[in-house]
Amino acid sequence: NISSELLASSHRKMRVLDCRPESKQVTEHVVDATGKDFEGFLQDVSKTFSVAEKETFVLTTTDRRVIDDHIFDELDDEITLQLLRTADQELPAATQEHISYVPHYYTLVQSGMYEYYASEGQKSLPYAFAELVDNSLSATANKEGLRNIDIRLLFDESQGKHAVVVRDNGCGMTSKQLNNWAVYRLSKFNRDNSTFHSDHSGYVRPAPVPRSLNSDISFFGVGGKQAVFYIGESARIITKPASSPDVHEFVMSKEDFERKEKNKEDIYCGVIRNRKPGDHAHIVAEEELYLQALIAEEEGKESFTAVVITGIQSDHITYLKQQFHLWTRELAHIYHYYVHGIHGNDVRQSSKNIERESDVDIQISLVEKSGKQPRLVNLRDIDNDMQTLYINSSSASFEFRAQAQGDAVVEGLIRYHPFLYDRETYPQDPYASPGAPDEEDDESLVLNPEGRGKRPVFECFWNGRLIPYTTVSEFEWCACSKKAGAVPAECYNRMSGVLFTNDCFPVSTNKLTFMDLELQLRDRETIFTRVINGQDQRVKIQREFTAWLKECHERYDKQIKFMGFQGVTSRLDV
Amino acid sequence: NISSELLASSHRKMRVLDCRPESKQVTEHVVDATGKDFEGFLQDVSKTFSVAEKETFVLTTTDRRVIDDHIFDELDDEITLQLLRTADQELPAATQEHISYVPHYYTLVQSGMYEYYASEGQKSLPYAFAELVDNSLSATANKEGLRNIDIRLLFDESQGKHAVVVRDNGCGMTSKQLNNWAVYRLSKFNRDNSTFHSDHSGYVRPAPVPRSLNSDISFFGVGGKQAVFYIGESARIITKPASSPDVHEFVMSKEDFERKEKNKEDIYCGVIRNRKPGDHAHIVAEEELYLQALIAEEEGKESFTAVVITGIQSDHITYLKQQFHLWTRELAHIYHYYVHGIHGNDVRQSSKNIERESDVDIQISLVEKSGKQPRLVNLRDIDNDMQTLYINSSSASFEFRAQAQGDAVVEGLIRYHPFLYDRETYPQDPYASPGAPDEEDDESLVLNPEGRGKRPVFECFWNGRLIPYTTVSEFEWCACSKKAGAVPAECYNRMSGVLFTNDCFPVSTNKLTFMDLELQLRDRETIFTRVINGQDQRVKIQREFTAWLKECHERYDKQIKFMGFQGVTSRLDV
Ligand SMILES: Nc1ncnc2c1ncn2[C@@H]1O[C@H](COP(=O)(O)OP(=O)(O)OP(=O)(O)O)[C@@H](O)[C@H]1O
Ligand SMILES: Nc1ncnc2c1ncn2[C@@H]1O[C@H](COP(=O)(O)OP(=O)(O)OP(=O)(O)O)[C@@H](O)[C@H]1O
Ligand SMILES: [Mg+2]
Ligand SMILES: [Mg+2]
Repeated sequence: NISSELLASSHRKMRVLDCRPESKQVTEHVVDATGKDFEGFLQDVSKTFSVAEKETFVLTTTDRRVIDDHIFDELDDEITLQLLRTADQELPAATQEHISYVPHYYTLVQSGMYEYYASEGQKSLPYAFAELVDNSLSATANKEGLRNIDIRLLFDESQGKHAVVVRDNGCGMTSKQLNNWAVYRLSKFNRDNSTFHSDHSGYVRPAPVPRSLNSDISFFGVGGKQAVFYIGESARIITKPASSPDVHEFVMSKEDFERKEKNKEDIYCGVIRNRKPGDHAHIVAEEELYLQALIAEEEGKESFTAVVITGIQSDHITYLKQQFHLWTRELAHIYHYYVHGIHGNDVRQSSKNIERESDVDIQISLVEKSGKQPRLVNLRDIDNDMQTLYINSSSASFEFRAQAQGDAVVEGLIRYHPFLYDRETYPQDPYASPGAPDEEDDESLVLNPEGRGKRPVFECFWNGRLIPYTTVSEFEWCACSKKAGAVPAECYNRMSGVLFTNDCFPVSTNKLTFMDLELQLRDRETIFTRVINGQDQRVKIQREFTAWLKECHERYDKQIKFMGFQGVTSRLDV
Repeated sequence: NISSELLASSHRKMRVLDCRPESKQVTEHVVDATGKDFEGFLQDVSKTFSVAEKETFVLTTTDRRVIDDHIFDELDDEITLQLLRTADQELPAATQEHISYVPHYYTLVQSGMYEYYASEGQKSLPYAFAELVDNSLSATANKEGLRNIDIRLLFDESQGKHAVVVRDNGCGMTSKQLNNWAVYRLSKFNRDNSTFHSDHSGYVRPAPVPRSLNSDISFFGVGGKQAVFYIGESARIITKPASSPDVHEFVMSKEDFERKEKNKEDIYCGVIRNRKPGDHAHIVAEEELYLQALIAEEEGKESFTAVVITGIQSDHITYLKQQFHLWTRELAHIYHYYVHGIHGNDVRQSSKNIERESDVDIQISLVEKSGKQPRLVNLRDIDNDMQTLYINSSSASFEFRAQAQGDAVVEGLIRYHPFLYDRETYPQDPYASPGAPDEEDDESLVLNPEGRGKRPVFECFWNGRLIPYTTVSEFEWCACSKKAGAVPAECYNRMSGVLFTNDCFPVSTNKLTFMDLELQLRDRETIFTRVINGQDQRVKIQREFTAWLKECHERYDKQIKFMGFQGVTSRLDV
């Protein structure tokens, strides 16, 4: 595909089909049009198809547009034309036209635009960031030692244009893998990771681990691309695999795509730069100063990946700055169990330090003006995400497992938030809309006067990662029913819960919802068992649960009842 | 890209970069490998780069894989290789490698898979069909006379394999437009509809019409493709534009893609067949008999489009047969106002026939065994979709308009469902889950003992088409509050409502949710005005609304109160 201006001078061939009424079969010839004007081309066509001297004919596109000398100049190389008696005659036989239908570059550039939708308010950005963190978790899965994931907001204008960097010390990518990164919808399931046909390397599902915290959080081959183009307009991937001394670098940008389209170049052709670590000779522009510093950090690192996003929408920048505590808290929520380990952020237990702590270290920094101290937060230190609030206000938990079809496994737990003296301890989301964030009271638990109320019981995690828009209200065996009479109804409002699924339960491409988790769990074939100390108990779950809830009520609920009023006594000892 | 078996014999060139430590600048040469073995190729490389006789060197891929004679045979044409002193030496200068990253064909084939998710139960299929109906509505927008949209389920095995056909008498497509149909993410906003640069034809937004029923229901350039590959594995588009005597036909199938990938052919190359109407010479297979009948219908039609889907998932077939009334009812819901006109399906008014009826005719037929009578339903005749139930159980309505930023306009209305004698008349969805469909009582209105209860007030339509997963609970001015004291609280439970937006309010790519409708409407800048007889009223909407609701209560609620029991009287007159 070359632009029409060029065509006049350059090589141009046309595929002409003889469709005149008398032809029983369509004959086809490629007629060279290079350097010819329409008159000359017509003469060649006449000769090629032996058109009689006096015979009238027309040339049309397959849309039956009649070619004249004006239109002739605009015709693309390799276009299919029809030789006809008249422009509206019937085709004597069917013809074939070769077309190309490569997806438009909006497939990448607009992919995230209508995906991380904000049906729950202003939260779309953390979910876009989560796609990049997902990738970094996958990449660091086999890392020995700390798994560092660094989100940096470089908003210091003296260092160049605004940039967002997500950087990890994971396995990095070879140039072939970096090429694969860029291919939309190429995923672990359908890609060939081997450089050569002779080294086979198909995807192997990781072995089951508790809470499905297997770091295998990729599925569709779209997440990274959707995320970068939701956040900004250009992505630079800088990566080094342990297997090679070279750093590989690739840039994909909306601007490049637009340029290639305009010049009728191949849209999906690009260049990977291979270079030695620390070599920033190619970064010269003033507005890319921050890249030099980033590249300088490469030296001595065995493997890493950095995704550098620029062209960031200005309202994203405002949000990221002004709502810093909100979106970092949301990330802490999404990765709660990766960051804190399988028991979550139990502040009350942490001093005892029984369990090995998690080796996932996710740090976020916001760099603004040169003088100003950067704002820094480690997800580990965030203690007001909902899971932290649930864990630390509960006094007991009930573990269970659901076995659905095939390998589909769900681990679940229900926590009990007792009534203490004069109040429910079921925590309220301090930032829940509506009612607008009341930002004074960041630290303390906000309590919910009616307990859970109508809120669903379960938040749901897929391979250990929160799927934010899917909640599960409750199951039959843990719902308040007339049969369950032994326990007061309000106790059922004192439960929160978590479901941990593996990836046998499909999620939507944007990882915001499960496809049919609740439906699948409600299936009659699904078997629920109680789990005690990691062991499945072969017992009736409803009976077990009701007994547990009853015990929770009797043991943990402390209700003050005023009985038999005796008059007012002044206490002098307080 | 040609397979390695072929390469040995066919043309093969490699791009070799001299990266030996002493080279200050990387020199590059294309070395021909056609017909050479590795030894011969190495000799050529040595010669080309003047490698000294005794000098040791290696050739590697950019992944630093050392080439040996085994791997050499597997190398693709045009691969980039590096000439190095040792496999692990540093690169003296950066190199560039050309890559291609055309989206994987799953972009099309899997596009709908995780999009029409079933978070509300088993309803995903009607939403996939809706994408095809959307396209047919757009295509018939300027049609004079009846706009026929025909959905045919051809499940009669004696006529070939199972097929789903969506057919319309719309404008059809030229071969260029058919080519464009196939291009993922090419939409009215970014495509060039003209065959030539000289005829400009950018998208023009249609003029405002009541209820935004403008038939302009396309946006992303993905709907049709997502839908056909969600429903089945192969799509044949057969279309004829009025401007041409030819029919154009194009097939896109998963199987084709797989074959092309296997043979390393260009994935997105295909063939359009141009032929005269009625010509089914190319349909010879027994399993495609039904196509002959379909093609025979073409004769005499000025323009049309048929989308023929095969390779239909067997559980889809089961669902389409067994839940016929359910999914057709859902379609009737989605297109309620297109099918019935701006006032909807007012059964009580229809005899009066004041308004011009809609000219949209959507018919669904299910053909099973040869003997069996086909099952037929016209969406116009479905009278138990929720909008029909709301309209026919209401006794008054309150119209309003919301003006948000720019051209964003919402028309809205609230209906009043009075309390009559001994019951609320607010209708209940007879098929709402859970509680399982109770199919006895198809025809009659099922009533809701607590009225609306906690249900949101508004269903939302985008360019006249239902966006099923977004509802809007209520606005401040129509919510029950202490200030509104004049009207009993239960009256607020007797309202249902509809919002009609234009496409200034973005929806998600799968058209299942609005991005931020509620958020945008809650914006302080949004101005609500009451509308009476199409005229905006400059009045305080809350006061107007409360007065209207009060009037509804006083006029339409008929509560029987038993006061002063007088004993039992036997009536002899009934
Ligand atoms: N930080 C990283 N380190 C190493 N490899 C990465 C990194 N990020 C992405 N990749 C590679 O690029 C591929 C594409 O990433 P992308 O997020 O676009 O899709 P995906 O993770 O495969 O699937 P999903 O759509 O579920 O995110 C990944 O599968 C992985 O192989
Ligand atoms: N039945 C039809 N008749 C005529 N043209 C059609 C028909 N169906 C599709 N097209 C053309 O093909 C294009 C692609 O359709 P497709 O549904 O894939 O995307 P879209 O309608 O443009 O956008 P959306 O993603 O919102 O559906 C349409 O824009 C339209 O030009
Ligand atoms: Mg990913
Ligand atoms: Mg469409």
